[in-house]
Amino acid sequence: MTYYQKLEQHYKKYARLGHLSAICGWDQASMMPAGGNEARSEAMAELAVLSHQLLTEPQLADWFDLAERESLAGEEQVSLKEMKRSWQMANLLPESLVQEQSLTGSKCEHAWRTQRAENNWHDFSKNLEPVVELARKEAQIRSEETGLSRYDALLDLYEPGMTTKELDQLFADLKSWLPSLIQQVQEKQGTETVITPQGPFPIEAQREISLEVMNKLGFDFNHGRLDISVHPFCGGVPTDVRITTRYDEDDFTSALMGVIHETGHARYEQGLPAQWHNLPAGEARSMGLHESQSLFFEMQLARNETFIGLLAPLAQGAFMRPDDQALTSDNLALVSTRVKPDFIRVDADEVTYPAHIILRYEIERDLIEGNIEVADIPELWDRKMNEYLGLSTKGNYTDGCMQDIHWTDGSFGYFPSYTLGAMYAAQFMAAMRKEMNIENLIRERNLTPIFNWLDKHIWKKASTLSTDQILINATGERLNAEYFKKHLIDRYLK
Amino acid sequence: MTYYQKLEQHYKKYARLGHLSAICGWDQASMMPAGGNEARSEAMAELAVLSHQLLTEPQLADWFDLAERESLAGEEQVSLKEMKRSWQMANLLPESLVQEQSLTGSKCEHAWRTQRAENNWHDFSKNLEPVVELARKEAQIRSEETGLSRYDALLDLYEPGMTTKELDQLFADLKSWLPSLIQQVQEKQGTETVITPQGPFPIEAQREISLEVMNKLGFDFNHGRLDISVHPFCGGVPTDVRITTRYDEDDFTSALMGVIHETGHARYEQGLPAQWHNLPAGEARSMGLHESQSLFFEMQLARNETFIGLLAPLAQGAFMRPDDQALTSDNLALVSTRVKPDFIRVDADEVTYPAHIILRYEIERDLIEGNIEVADIPELWDRKMNEYLGLSTKGNYTDGCMQDIHWTDGSFGYFPSYTLGAMYAAQFMAAMRKEMNIENLIRERNLTPIFNWLDKHIWKKASTLSTDQILINATGERLNAEYFKKHLIDRYLK
Repeated sequence: MTYYQKLEQHYKKYARLGHLSAICGWDQASMMPAGGNEARSEAMAELAVLSHQLLTEPQLADWFDLAERESLAGEEQVSLKEMKRSWQMANLLPESLVQEQSLTGSKCEHAWRTQRAENNWHDFSKNLEPVVELARKEAQIRSEETGLSRYDALLDLYEPGMTTKELDQLFADLKSWLPSLIQQVQEKQGTETVITPQGPFPIEAQREISLEVMNKLGFDFNHGRLDISVHPFCGGVPTDVRITTRYDEDDFTSALMGVIHETGHARYEQGLPAQWHNLPAGEARSMGLHESQSLFFEMQLARNETFIGLLAPLAQGAFMRPDDQALTSDNLALVSTRVKPDFIRVDADEVTYPAHIILRYEIERDLIEGNIEVADIPELWDRKMNEYLGLSTKGNYTDGCMQDIHWTDGSFGYFPSYTLGAMYAAQFMAAMRKEMNIENLIRERNLTPIFNWLDKHIWKKASTLSTDQILINATGERLNAEYFKKHLIDRYLK
Repeated sequence: MTYYQKLEQHYKKYARLGHLSAICGWDQASMMPAGGNEARSEAMAELAVLSHQLLTEPQLADWFDLAERESLAGEEQVSLKEMKRSWQMANLLPESLVQEQSLTGSKCEHAWRTQRAENNWHDFSKNLEPVVELARKEAQIRSEETGLSRYDALLDLYEPGMTTKELDQLFADLKSWLPSLIQQVQEKQGTETVITPQGPFPIEAQREISLEVMNKLGFDFNHGRLDISVHPFCGGVPTDVRITTRYDEDDFTSALMGVIHETGHARYEQGLPAQWHNLPAGEARSMGLHESQSLFFEMQLARNETFIGLLAPLAQGAFMRPDDQALTSDNLALVSTRVKPDFIRVDADEVTYPAHIILRYEIERDLIEGNIEVADIPELWDRKMNEYLGLSTKGNYTDGCMQDIHWTDGSFGYFPSYTLGAMYAAQFMAAMRKEMNIENLIRERNLTPIFNWLDKHIWKKASTLSTDQILINATGERLNAEYFKKHLIDRYLK
């Protein structure tokens, strides 16, 4: 057996433990009774320790050296590079720091769940401070190793290759036109009459539509399922993708759009090349690219007026309301594209969403780089909310700087992925439009060419190319925010 | 840290991996889409290897030696003894034999799934022969180490302390009166008028009754759930017990009694002492004792006429059939105690079931001891079926010697547990009756004293006592088949 083959075996072993962790994690969120949580958390932690040991096994250093001297096919070289990257990333941090981060993050996150409801910034900030301190330590170590700036070293974990320099430019551009765009859209929409669909919409019927739409969108039910959880997610493994949603009897569009969103994530996973399963080169390329697929499905495809034309009769049928004026295609298209600045990121529409992200990016970047402190967050949050969305969060921490889970367990560097995903998705759609008439395909109920394009250019590439290279191969250029801007103008101002 | 404490830590680690395996196994049987099976099986196998490595770690030998010289509390001594037993049991077999067994068993079981349907004994027996050969090898190794006979050494894995000598006596006694009892019961039942309930019985309503009955039987839904699988089972972990059933629209009693059966298994698991969770001393004592709890719930309790008096109104309500004469207490009591010799063990009634077990026991005992060969099985099966139940299986392998999964993957020594369980259950009930009036308690809907008795005498003892000692403490004597005989006569001939 060659050293490259030994490495493959080793990484597959690691991935198989990851499989069990993914399924037990899905179970914990969607199936497990509350009383099972303590023992489950202990079992998952035990597995995490074993996995980390596998990932950081000292003998791998020699294996990498020896494998690099072996004569490898092009594909194997790519795979070796990705294995080595994941090994280097895992080995950078001393185990004591990883453990301290895990404990401090758990404590902060756990307390946050009650502190947020109590609007208790004072106590929360005391827990957040050590979380930020440890994240800074991690950033420092990664920065020294990679030569990246501290924040960039964290960003690189989620969006390899992306930098503060590029984000600053992209977001500066967005900030230059987004606030006025939001204002224009609101003015335009102020003249429109929208009928809000009135519940109750039985959950069984909502589930039925969800499954039907997943089918239309090519979700492979032989390799996945749909269930319920408090926080919707896409989990499992490529051969068995588990997506979840939550149903609201008063509003069927939120679960439906949520399911479509997760279906985008799911198809990326299901579409990853089988020959690379269980190896780093076979994983989804980046968080931003993952989000681009969910947003392509939800924003580029499903909220497209023509696609709403397919959803409306489904809803009318499932809810047995053939004559409900709220469920006509035209009205549902209006409902699905409402724009309104508001406090909560996860509830934000497509147009105001980037404002939430830019605000968080600017704060976490400066936090990690050491330019601001935890105590500065509320005032900055309030100032930026005023500036970007015209809303005040003064004294309102619950709906302000305490609304997200990300920072509580130290996930700094993740937020930009959301807006990068939106921009990638718009750029993919623009490129696709050069090759096919999207609206005609939707009308003909022939979505296959669309999915084939994504499969060829993104899903089947997995991590064998850089995000940049995937963008260039698929669209002819690097990330260009103009496509996103054009998409918003076309959809919301025309 | 003492060596005893090191051992505890080690076994808890092992148990936590077992937790993940139990949940992923449950998922595989009840939730997983078919396309996920290959990757799941690989992941489970990887975990099994890791678990086996933990269980057989060479340094444990020294730890046991050193721990035995430490000053330990009585409870710790019991725990140490059980940890050592599990270590010895795991270490007896060479890894090559374990792997060969796993492969040969998988192959035989997999092919059996189609061969059984095709009544293809010829090809099946070719796969079964090496499975038996390997089981004999295992039995030989275990026999040399333990001083038990070869079959006893396998039996001891499922029912520690039980021997062929005792089983031969117990079963000889049973055989002396069971065939004539079956005949008498059939004659008596021939004069009774029974109305077979006519479906459809909607599955949603069946599930509702199941959940209600589980509640009545004290199933803790904060630490468990009910789902669907092709082959019902009780899985999960003590803090999160997963039971399953399968619903038949034409026959609600089979799922209902199945759920009650699994609830008995579940309460044993949920009732295991929390301070021993994740340690060998905290596990259920034996397969026979486990089966005694499921059969106590199903046979001793639920098929009791008085208990049927509680189930009947539930069924009438859930199926909205207040006037269905098939759903009266009296008729359902008759339905629930029908006796009819038939081919299939898993469908057998309480009275004919032991005949199926004795037949299998006699064949597998002689197979493992080398007194008969695989080729002899069909003829023996046919002869014994004729002798015990008056049925011929000549040429009918599907409903004869190919009906069970147990032998296909080499689980020899398991079958006696079923009838031992039935006998233990009857003996427990007889002892309980000396302390309380069971029928009055059922009528008063006050089952707590019954469960408290089981909890005190069986569940909370876990593996800290031998099965013998549990029997003696709970009932004042060792296993005595007279109680089972008396139970059958009381229920079926009076």
